Amino acid sequence: MALLFLSTPERAAVWGPIFAGAGEDMIVGEEAVSDPAAVTHILCWVPPEDLKRYPNLEAVISAGAGVDQMPPMPEGVALVRTIAPGIEEMVRDWVVMATLMLHRDMPIYLHQANRGQWSAHAVPRTRGVRVGIMGIGRIGRLVAWTLGTMGFEVSGWSRSGQPVEGVAVYGEADLDAFLAQAEILVCLLPLTEDTRAILSAKLFEKLPRGARLVHAGRGAQLDMDALKSALDRGQLASAMLDVTNPEPLPEDHWAWHDPRIVITPHVAASTDHAEGARHALEVIRTGRNREELPGRIDQQRGY
Amino acid sequence: MALLFLSTPERAAVWGPIFAGAGEDMIVGEEAVSDPAAVTHILCWVPPEDLKRYPNLEAVISAGAGVDQMPPMPEGVALVRTIAPGIEEMVRDWVVMATLMLHRDMPIYLHQANRGQWSAHAVPRTRGVRVGIMGIGRIGRLVAWTLGTMGFEVSGWSRSGQPVEGVAVYGEADLDAFLAQAEILVCLLPLTEDTRAILSAKLFEKLPRGARLVHAGRGAQLDMDALKSALDRGQLASAMLDVTNPEPLPEDHWAWHDPRIVITPHVAASTDHAEGARHALEVIRTGRNREELPGRIDQQRGY
Ligand SMILES: NC(=O)c1ccc[n+]([C@@H]2O[C@H](COP(=O)([O-])OP(=O)(O)OC[C@H]3O[C@@H](n4cnc5c(N)ncnc54)[C@H](OP(=O)(O)O)[C@@H]3O)[C@@H](O)[C@H]2O)c1
Ligand SMILES: NC(=O)c1ccc[n+]([C@@H]2O[C@H](COP(=O)([O-])OP(=O)(O)OC[C@H]3O[C@@H](n4cnc5c(N)ncnc54)[C@H](OP(=O)(O)O)[C@@H]3O)[C@@H](O)[C@H]2O)c1
Repeated sequence: MALLFLSTPERAAVWGPIFAGAGEDMIVGEEAVSDPAAVTHILCWVPPEDLKRYPNLEAVISAGAGVDQMPPMPEGVALVRTIAPGIEEMVRDWVVMATLMLHRDMPIYLHQANRGQWSAHAVPRTRGVRVGIMGIGRIGRLVAWTLGTMGFEVSGWSRSGQPVEGVAVYGEADLDAFLAQAEILVCLLPLTEDTRAILSAKLFEKLPRGARLVHAGRGAQLDMDALKSALDRGQLASAMLDVTNPEPLPEDHWAWHDPRIVITPHVAASTDHAEGARHALEVIRTGRNREELPGRIDQQRGY
Repeated sequence: MALLFLSTPERAAVWGPIFAGAGEDMIVGEEAVSDPAAVTHILCWVPPEDLKRYPNLEAVISAGAGVDQMPPMPEGVALVRTIAPGIEEMVRDWVVMATLMLHRDMPIYLHQANRGQWSAHAVPRTRGVRVGIMGIGRIGRLVAWTLGTMGFEVSGWSRSGQPVEGVAVYGEADLDAFLAQAEILVCLLPLTEDTRAILSAKLFEKLPRGARLVHAGRGAQLDMDALKSALDRGQLASAMLDVTNPEPLPEDHWAWHDPRIVITPHVAASTDHAEGARHALEVIRTGRNREELPGRIDQQRGY
């Protein structure tokens, strides 16, 4: 049994000692594989084309929290996303920051500051302001808790509509009712066939007028032209994007210079190498014990 | 007994009905005073020059959370600041936002965005990052609690060194030890003779190299030239200022265009009119009952 490691040298430098300490084999790079039958796990962002080369492959582990970049797995191979408290807390921090920045009109103040303009606007309270989180999973729940303690009224939307303490959760069928009350819309959905281009002209129309958008899901969920037109019509007031469409955003893209939009270059989170290694060890251990793999993807639903 | 109201017409429009509902007299504007002996309280930002005109004056109530704009009171007249949950929560929201913005390198990302540059830097975790709050009073405690739940290690500095749950509090004499560990320094001090120009070259030198500054106290506490030089030397990495010196900051001031500084025009909070009115009623009621006035200033220490 060995994990085939297909990622950066910096990450390998952290994983190596952790795997050695745990007494698990780790092979760095396909060229180092002498016996393909020994490979039971692969860690990668995108796997090698020919996965059939590894007859005893049990699981492919994504180096990140998403698996939308992954091709379909061969029959019998599990697909696993990394689960690391660090990732979830980092995204939580970014989303809390972004929500406060839009709530407190930072796009307006940043634009004024560029022109040396000292001019105050009404200061809003958080109490009663409705934040709607699309995708109220591991990260969404952390965000909901923190924003709730600050006075925001938090709702969530998920496929299952499963209850979450302190959050008004809407199920898949109740999207319109969820959107109608979301003054600040936060997207934390995984990218699947159902969520591709979900942030569309039609969706923006269903928000309260002057709503704000915080996007930390995946770029391909967002129709950037629809965003521009919603901003131009005043249907949306502002947006903060950590993910864009396309990504990276080209230097001459209009969105960089739109004063109503603040963009960060997909930096809401990055996986802590040691946490990633510990998660992979846990995937190996649970597989060996025929227990549930942490972070296992339902390949049918895509997340 | 009457309150002499010396503030804006918008505020008067909210206070009037609240005072009428409580059966208390409120006189709007000095020209409306027919019997100066009836005036027991004055609500203002800065009081009229001749306070001796009101022989039965008991208290002057500041319309804001600070009293640094107030002259010395005549013998026997209490000075009171407004206490309103809204103000405290608004400043908390702004400080949490500003702390996250500096922690997550928003000055760098905003500068890159202005040039259409998509370029990611290492993503820091909050765990273990030390935030030091100068002035751990009503607002500082709210800030400490929220940042603590997000993983920051929070310390505080106060005159008394009075303990605060979950916060390592340093007393007045331990300023140097407090500063030596504050990676993100938050100023929430009242402006007094002791705190004027406290954010100086000497103080910045005592912080860990590359520290960040969040300033939501008062502009006169900050030496802006010392800030520039600390940024130039790399002693400070970035700063977020809601208050500046001078204020308003002139259009051609260098700080507007320094990419390491983000400025908002003194908008961390504004007093909710209804909350202000209810606080004033409470000052009148407690005075009548010879109880402690809420928000009463110790005129000796200045806050
Ligand atoms: N910007 C970044 O740097 C960054 C970093 C990490 C993660 N992310 C993004 O954040 C996403 C969420 O991560 P997570 O760990 O919180 O995932 P998670 O725990 O799997 O939660 C996903 C949530 O989305 C809901 N959902 C999925 N498909 C849906 C659909 N078609 N309709 C309605 N709801 C749907 C799920 O509903 P159920 O509860 O019913 O299953 C669940 O509530 C990731 O997939 C990724 O896109 C971004
Ligand atoms: N930017 C804005 O829009 C805005 C809005 C509201 C307030 N503010 C600022 O926030 C300040 C704090 O408000 P607050 O309601 O939290 O006040 P507070 O409850 O009176 O707390 C003040 C804190 O500062 C400490 N302190 C005062 N002088 C000190 C000194 N010389 N050395 C060390 N510590 C000292 C006090 O120490 P002790 O605990 O020992 O008394 C206390 O911890 C206000 O005075 C104002 O400057 C700004």
